[in-house]
Amino acid sequence: MDLSQDSFIQDFPPGDLDFYRKQATFNWKKLKLVFEDPQRIKTKNFLWSLFEKESAFKQNNGEPSIEEQKQIVIRQLLAVRSYNVLPADIHSTPLKQWLRVFMTIGQALVVVSPDAAVKLIVDVVLAHMSIILLGNDRQKKIGQLAWESMRHAAFMLTEVAHGSDTRNMQTTATYNEESQEFILDTPNFQAAKCWSGNLGMSCTIGIVFAQLYVKGSCYGLHAFLVPIRHPGTYEVYSGITIKDMGLKLGLNGVDNAIILFHKYKIPRSNLLNKFANVTADGRYITQLSSPGKVFGSTIGNLSTGRVSVVQESSEYLICAVVIAVRYAAVRKQFGANKDEELAIIEHQLHQWRLFPHLAAAAVLKVFATSIADDYINMLIQQTTEKDSVFSTSAYKTEMHVILSAAKPLTTWSCQDAIQQCREACGGHAFLNASRFGVLRNSNDARVTYEGDNNILLQQTSRWLLKLWDGLKQGVPISTPLGTCNFLNNHSAIRNKKCTASTSDDVKSFTFLQESFEWLITYLLQETSEKLLTGFESSGCLFTAFNNIQVYKANVLSMVYIEYVVLSRYWSIIHNDCVDISVRRVSITIGLLYGLSCLDKHLIYLYEGGFTQPSLSKLVKDAILDICSILKCDAVAVADALSFPDSVLNSVLAKSDGKLYENLRNELFRGDTCVPEILASKL
Amino acid sequence: MDLSQDSFIQDFPPGDLDFYRKQATFNWKKLKLVFEDPQRIKTKNFLWSLFEKESAFKQNNGEPSIEEQKQIVIRQLLAVRSYNVLPADIHSTPLKQWLRVFMTIGQALVVVSPDAAVKLIVDVVLAHMSIILLGNDRQKKIGQLAWESMRHAAFMLTEVAHGSDTRNMQTTATYNEESQEFILDTPNFQAAKCWSGNLGMSCTIGIVFAQLYVKGSCYGLHAFLVPIRHPGTYEVYSGITIKDMGLKLGLNGVDNAIILFHKYKIPRSNLLNKFANVTADGRYITQLSSPGKVFGSTIGNLSTGRVSVVQESSEYLICAVVIAVRYAAVRKQFGANKDEELAIIEHQLHQWRLFPHLAAAAVLKVFATSIADDYINMLIQQTTEKDSVFSTSAYKTEMHVILSAAKPLTTWSCQDAIQQCREACGGHAFLNASRFGVLRNSNDARVTYEGDNNILLQQTSRWLLKLWDGLKQGVPISTPLGTCNFLNNHSAIRNKKCTASTSDDVKSFTFLQESFEWLITYLLQETSEKLLTGFESSGCLFTAFNNIQVYKANVLSMVYIEYVVLSRYWSIIHNDCVDISVRRVSITIGLLYGLSCLDKHLIYLYEGGFTQPSLSKLVKDAILDICSILKCDAVAVADALSFPDSVLNSVLAKSDGKLYENLRNELFRGDTCVPEILASKL
Ligand SMILES: Cc1cc2nc3c(=O)[nH]c(=O)nc-3n(C[C@H](O)[C@H](O)[C@H](O)COP(=O)(O)OP(=O)(O)OC[C@H]3O[C@@H](n4cnc5c(N)ncnc54)[C@H](O)[C@@H]3O)c2cc1C
Ligand SMILES: Cc1cc2nc3c(=O)[nH]c(=O)nc-3n(C[C@H](O)[C@H](O)[C@H](O)COP(=O)(O)OP(=O)(O)OC[C@H]3O[C@@H](n4cnc5c(N)ncnc54)[C@H](O)[C@@H]3O)c2cc1C
Repeated sequence: MDLSQDSFIQDFPPGDLDFYRKQATFNWKKLKLVFEDPQRIKTKNFLWSLFEKESAFKQNNGEPSIEEQKQIVIRQLLAVRSYNVLPADIHSTPLKQWLRVFMTIGQALVVVSPDAAVKLIVDVVLAHMSIILLGNDRQKKIGQLAWESMRHAAFMLTEVAHGSDTRNMQTTATYNEESQEFILDTPNFQAAKCWSGNLGMSCTIGIVFAQLYVKGSCYGLHAFLVPIRHPGTYEVYSGITIKDMGLKLGLNGVDNAIILFHKYKIPRSNLLNKFANVTADGRYITQLSSPGKVFGSTIGNLSTGRVSVVQESSEYLICAVVIAVRYAAVRKQFGANKDEELAIIEHQLHQWRLFPHLAAAAVLKVFATSIADDYINMLIQQTTEKDSVFSTSAYKTEMHVILSAAKPLTTWSCQDAIQQCREACGGHAFLNASRFGVLRNSNDARVTYEGDNNILLQQTSRWLLKLWDGLKQGVPISTPLGTCNFLNNHSAIRNKKCTASTSDDVKSFTFLQESFEWLITYLLQETSEKLLTGFESSGCLFTAFNNIQVYKANVLSMVYIEYVVLSRYWSIIHNDCVDISVRRVSITIGLLYGLSCLDKHLIYLYEGGFTQPSLSKLVKDAILDICSILKCDAVAVADALSFPDSVLNSVLAKSDGKLYENLRNELFRGDTCVPEILASKL
Repeated sequence: MDLSQDSFIQDFPPGDLDFYRKQATFNWKKLKLVFEDPQRIKTKNFLWSLFEKESAFKQNNGEPSIEEQKQIVIRQLLAVRSYNVLPADIHSTPLKQWLRVFMTIGQALVVVSPDAAVKLIVDVVLAHMSIILLGNDRQKKIGQLAWESMRHAAFMLTEVAHGSDTRNMQTTATYNEESQEFILDTPNFQAAKCWSGNLGMSCTIGIVFAQLYVKGSCYGLHAFLVPIRHPGTYEVYSGITIKDMGLKLGLNGVDNAIILFHKYKIPRSNLLNKFANVTADGRYITQLSSPGKVFGSTIGNLSTGRVSVVQESSEYLICAVVIAVRYAAVRKQFGANKDEELAIIEHQLHQWRLFPHLAAAAVLKVFATSIADDYINMLIQQTTEKDSVFSTSAYKTEMHVILSAAKPLTTWSCQDAIQQCREACGGHAFLNASRFGVLRNSNDARVTYEGDNNILLQQTSRWLLKLWDGLKQGVPISTPLGTCNFLNNHSAIRNKKCTASTSDDVKSFTFLQESFEWLITYLLQETSEKLLTGFESSGCLFTAFNNIQVYKANVLSMVYIEYVVLSRYWSIIHNDCVDISVRRVSITIGLLYGLSCLDKHLIYLYEGGFTQPSLSKLVKDAILDICSILKCDAVAVADALSFPDSVLNSVLAKSDGKLYENLRNELFRGDTCVPEILASKL
């Protein structure tokens, strides 16, 4: 690796973090390049330097009202557009030329303004992408008009009474042959579309999902491009009622709203017709085997939002843990003697509370970047219609399955980490300036939107169960991404016994690999058996599926994705392009992540007879051991993951480590009447 | 039990919750009386009805600024005082006559206005109580003056650089013989007292902890009564700088502030001198064996705050889980057929996510009330100086030990429950009107204040280790509250093997008792051995203690308190005064709580050889089984725990169960320009 590759990465100012920085066994800049390639770092730094100059991004010391917050976010988005980093015409520019950079912009933005990022992602990733992937030329023109005039677009799927269960949504789109129009209608309040971002204020168009009725028959949910507001006056078109959803737990700068359609007419050509169409004379046509598949295919094309969520949560996890690790390195509390106070990072309990999250941040960051790259690649191949393994439906399915579990894993890992890190920074973390509030409140929504985590996990386990069924019927597994081809050896795996007998034995990828493969096989077998018995006794597949989730399918999906994540990380850090000097710490991080995940599932290793009583102690000892090894490197790992101070934006964790000076400046910001005589102390 | 005892409990309006209410196997009003005695219910209802009439308690639909929030909270507190439910003279009225009612007021207030409750508790429980328990008559007069003129008091212990580690605090109080004054001084910004509630705006006096220096010798931390503001003009006295701490993650109506003293003089008589005094001519005198014990004894008297926290978190846990259970009973999503949608409470996964928290809410509520009663009783005995077992130091120690673990248990259980319940209510839970935001943000602080949870747990394990040590040296254990007298049988317990072989076997208190007693014994032995080895290898007790926390002492304290809580609950529900008709459901709740706790620690049962592979499945099956049994009763249990609608104050969980009607009213509150033609749908 070219040494000059990291020359554009800025050094940190000297300060109280130097004590641990000097103990690091590697150069943090080299590790940074494992987490992010130079091009991305440069793009982000470029954007962040622009944001810093922008008044819309200035930290507001006052308390902007919700209305003001929404205005500020709009101004931030206008600023982002003004940099011309995105194409003027996203509908004719090939995805190849902008999607990657768009994802980088989203990442750069989300840590600075979560609200702006959410609005941008709803606009591009949910709404415009629907048109790009599923729409026709006329729709692309409409989309383009909105885009170039800086109007936003919304995405309206969720209804007041139905979220996860899309099948039962009630908004209707009835085809009227005479006028050649669809008539959108909201039969009652429960059927009102709700939670749509950009809908409350800034969108002019949107994608609406409605039950399609043609000649009295219902063909299920279809997506329509719908004009919402006049692009000049922003007046809501008549036949539509929109209401902002009011104060929320977070993201108050996002204009989430509900909408009711009252026999609102849109032209026939507004149906997104990639998979199905209605002819002028009212015939429903589709290339798919049944109308029921149309919605699945439509929504199957829209996983880009999930990719964003995975990336966003991975960035937030980094924020939380960097703050807590830096704080732990400068905050002193207790010591063997009164005069020898220890930084709290020295306390074993504190290491154990933080370092698994630090490891998760690193591992999930590497995973998120890599899976996003593959996903984008897949989309690009798909839109260029080149035939390749990356655009087959098997590849898409496996990608969907991975993302359906990766989204729960990252969003939950992030939420847990934020809470633990908040607590680990004690009382000062309760200051808004710590940044934990906005992290917790914005990430919280990610657990729910883009598919409720618990529901998504069911998609992953269903796929695994299907493969398992096939296997039992003699169909070997060979998936494009190869995430579970090992299952072909299921009998051998299931009969294996754990041979680890020392704490060192478990500190190896081989041990983790064997344990995870055994675990997935065991859980799959158990889940499948329970499904069968459940079906036999209830006679209802729905009930049987419902009753295999707890302790079985749910855990299975989590264990599966943890293993996918870990394996991907492991192979990436062993790439030639990873500087050899950071391999050791990367391995340590990977082992800590793997062992911490396994620690949560140990009980199954016992229950299924994989191991003897001692394993639990070996794993726990190994975790503590790795924590103590990581202590000297933790600050450097955090540095490698971190953002510039203005982006991380936490008074507890500036890169100069001058905790108390920074706290003092924060608390005594603005005017305060400090008597002259006291000023010296401050 | 007199049937008319529940006649004052209002029925619920009819609505969509009736479906499950009708399935309940018991009368919820009878269960309510297990959770709260009639007197308390009446007092709370009385207060809540007053609050409802008070403009200061009206839900503010606008967005009050932080300054306005603080003003509103002050007005709320003035209202509370105006009801004359508290004595006009708390310093001369015996505790017996008002402390119990005060705690009830705190509980009633905290669910309506967390901020007002925090301010009231800081005022009475931290500040005035310090004077009552540790002060002299002159101080009581000063306290009384502030109280009767509705001025507030603050409690200043935490410094910017030191929270948990009080020993290293740096504020000094130097005795000046000539003027017979103490000179309070803040040597630097790190030593500034911080986070004090009531300090930023409303207090006129406060308790300050400072290192006492007399004739050049330091005697450690002592508490002083300190005038802060002029009670007439509210002007801060010169020699003091106060700065509000700005925006926080929550509790923004509380005026937390930092304070710096600049050689600020207070009279000699302002030292709280129950345990130590300084004579006019500068001699330090104490009845305790060493000055080091003075701070311990001082702070040991101030656990009332922790009792409040336990109660508050238990109330918040109730709020969260009642909202989620009611929502689950009316929210429908998915079903075997399109037309047969199931309430989400029917999904096993959903039951499993919620019901353990519902059980925790019930069990912790019963525990909190009971332990608070005992604690208050102890204080009353202590202040009346009657000699009784309840005022011995052994009793006080055990109480302190229980509270040191009960506070982490309840605050964490509550925080977990809030997050799970938020997620369980899907997207609508992200509405501010769901109430989850304020619950999460206010409870979050409780994890940290009144002693950081992780630090507190160490106090509990230390005591257990000390008893264990004694036991090994032949001193049998016999503690006043008897929470671990079973340890006298440690050898027999440790050698026991679990005999459960069916899922029914584990659904018994005997199984739980045996498992918990084994678990505590095992963890105690393991922890003690690790401490010894650690001490032998490091030669440093501090280091050795630091290294026994993870997986050992920390878990030990949690398991100990879970068992204390469960046992107390178990004996209370078997009291004669508990209506026999609700005993069955109370038992079900207790078993679910016990098994859910045990589920988290199962690995130790395997590791220590207590059990065979099958136990884990038995426990998990039993949990799922109990969840399905509880399904019909869950709404009624929630009803029994719940508050009036105006207090619970969640749009997702009004007692009429009219979810969508209530949501609609909430979302279309205020003026909205709905076209006439649409109004019918709303
Ligand atoms: C901030 C925010 C922004 C959003 N933006 C948009 C947007 O732009 N456009 C849009 O269309 N939507 C948007 N949404 C809505 C979001 O996509 C939905 O909230 C989400 O899909 C979950 O649906 P729901 O809220 O209806 O939950 P439900 O589906 O009602 O689920 C509620 C709970 O029940 C559980 N549950 C449901 N079914 C089962 C089952 N079978 N088994 C076990 N448990 C079950 C779930 O796990 C969940 O905990 C947004 C939401 C939020 C909070
Ligand atoms: C809303 C709010 C209100 C408050 N009100 C008041 C008030 O009125 N008066 C007042 O005096 N104070 C008040 N406090 C302060 C509060 O009491 C302290 O925050 C609390 O005691 C913890 O101290 P700390 O914040 O200094 O954390 P620290 O002691 O610095 O601890 C930081 C972290 O380090 C960990 N840690 C520390 N030592 C060890 C160790 N030996 N081993 C392992 N881990 C360790 C802790 O677990 C914690 O996670 C308030 C705080 C808040 C947030």
